[in-house]
Amino acid sequence: MSPRTFSRIPKHIGIIPDGNRRWAVDNNLHKQDGYAHGLSPGFQLYELMIKYGIKEATFYGFTKDNTKRPKAQTSAFTKACVEAVENLADRDANLLVIGNTKSSVFPKPLLKYANQRVKFGRGLINLNFLVNYDWNWDLSHAYNGNNNPLQTNFDLISHIGSNDISRMDLIIRWGGRRRLSGFLPVQSVYADIYIVNQYWPDFQEEQFIDALKWYQTTDITLGG
Amino acid sequence: MSPRTFSRIPKHIGIIPDGNRRWAVDNNLHKQDGYAHGLSPGFQLYELMIKYGIKEATFYGFTKDNTKRPKAQTSAFTKACVEAVENLADRDANLLVIGNTKSSVFPKPLLKYANQRVKFGRGLINLNFLVNYDWNWDLSHAYNGNNNPLQTNFDLISHIGSNDISRMDLIIRWGGRRRLSGFLPVQSVYADIYIVNQYWPDFQEEQFIDALKWYQTTDITLGG
Repeated sequence: MSPRTFSRIPKHIGIIPDGNRRWAVDNNLHKQDGYAHGLSPGFQLYELMIKYGIKEATFYGFTKDNTKRPKAQTSAFTKACVEAVENLADRDANLLVIGNTKSSVFPKPLLKYANQRVKFGRGLINLNFLVNYDWNWDLSHAYNGNNNPLQTNFDLISHIGSNDISRMDLIIRWGGRRRLSGFLPVQSVYADIYIVNQYWPDFQEEQFIDALKWYQTTDITLGG
Repeated sequence: MSPRTFSRIPKHIGIIPDGNRRWAVDNNLHKQDGYAHGLSPGFQLYELMIKYGIKEATFYGFTKDNTKRPKAQTSAFTKACVEAVENLADRDANLLVIGNTKSSVFPKPLLKYANQRVKFGRGLINLNFLVNYDWNWDLSHAYNGNNNPLQTNFDLISHIGSNDISRMDLIIRWGGRRRLSGFLPVQSVYADIYIVNQYWPDFQEEQFIDALKWYQTTDITLGG
């Protein structure tokens, strides 16, 4: 497929890379061993998104909810997130890490990328990475004592914790679950949601292309 | 199907009754004529939900976004919402209408059901009806000058405009669109989402049964 094949391309895609643990179990590995197999798919998808002209992408790394899992798993997904960012530093993206940095489970090596966008190489795509993210934490930021959100036309999105992340046009979730699991509740309000039944470590280019093909058939009403 | 057939039933179901206008066009009617054909499906579904032991349901009536449509359409869907509530008054539900009542487009006959739950008959199900709803308006309510949402473990859901509506387990959307369109961003964070391709006026009992069958196959992790 050529990028020009598409009549309409989403500006901002949200990625939920789910199914790492189920993939591990299916492959006779420990659950926690799945996360390391999710790194290579992430970079394949990164390359494809640049090829197809996607301007912004948000990856769902891990959440506060996820940190309640057994230690072997939380260590493994934290390590995978840190490695993902370290590998990205050699490429061409503007990285923004969003999450609750004040918690002890936030990975220290990622602090320098949190809450400010850092340019790697030619900065060909804005990449957002949710790390120790929590939807309640995110939305609560709109209320800081100085804001008055009840005033007419208060623009909530400009005051939440993830305010540097724009509205998403398309969300692609791997692993077959049909839900958002707390993924950016404000930026997802008008997003079209595409489910890939295969697990994230079984990422294939055609899954992404099929999502883009489907997206161009949707209408865009923004609720109107 | 008997209610006992199911191993697990959702406690709270969200209903997005979409496709009224497309149904009208397909049936050689004016777009606005579709809404009146959405009333009977709503009561069929109400009866089924009581039969299957659903404790709470939320219907997406109309939104602030919707009120930007042509006058013939806004008049028609407002009329349908008022008629739905007037018909419900002869049945057995605890009704709560949620939406921005301070706007001139909020239907006056529904003011007496807004922001307080009203018991009809035996009150067999809690029914929430979103009328002139706006996700930005809803979330902005968490700020009232006395709250400090940035404190640890601030429970956002208890402070938003729709705080009397509980977390949804399952959302069923008719009309084939795969998105939430601003439907209760906080209560939908962990909801499983089921899409019915048929338009809402073509509601059939089996669509609901199929959604329940699918729901019992999902896992429930609440993000964990």
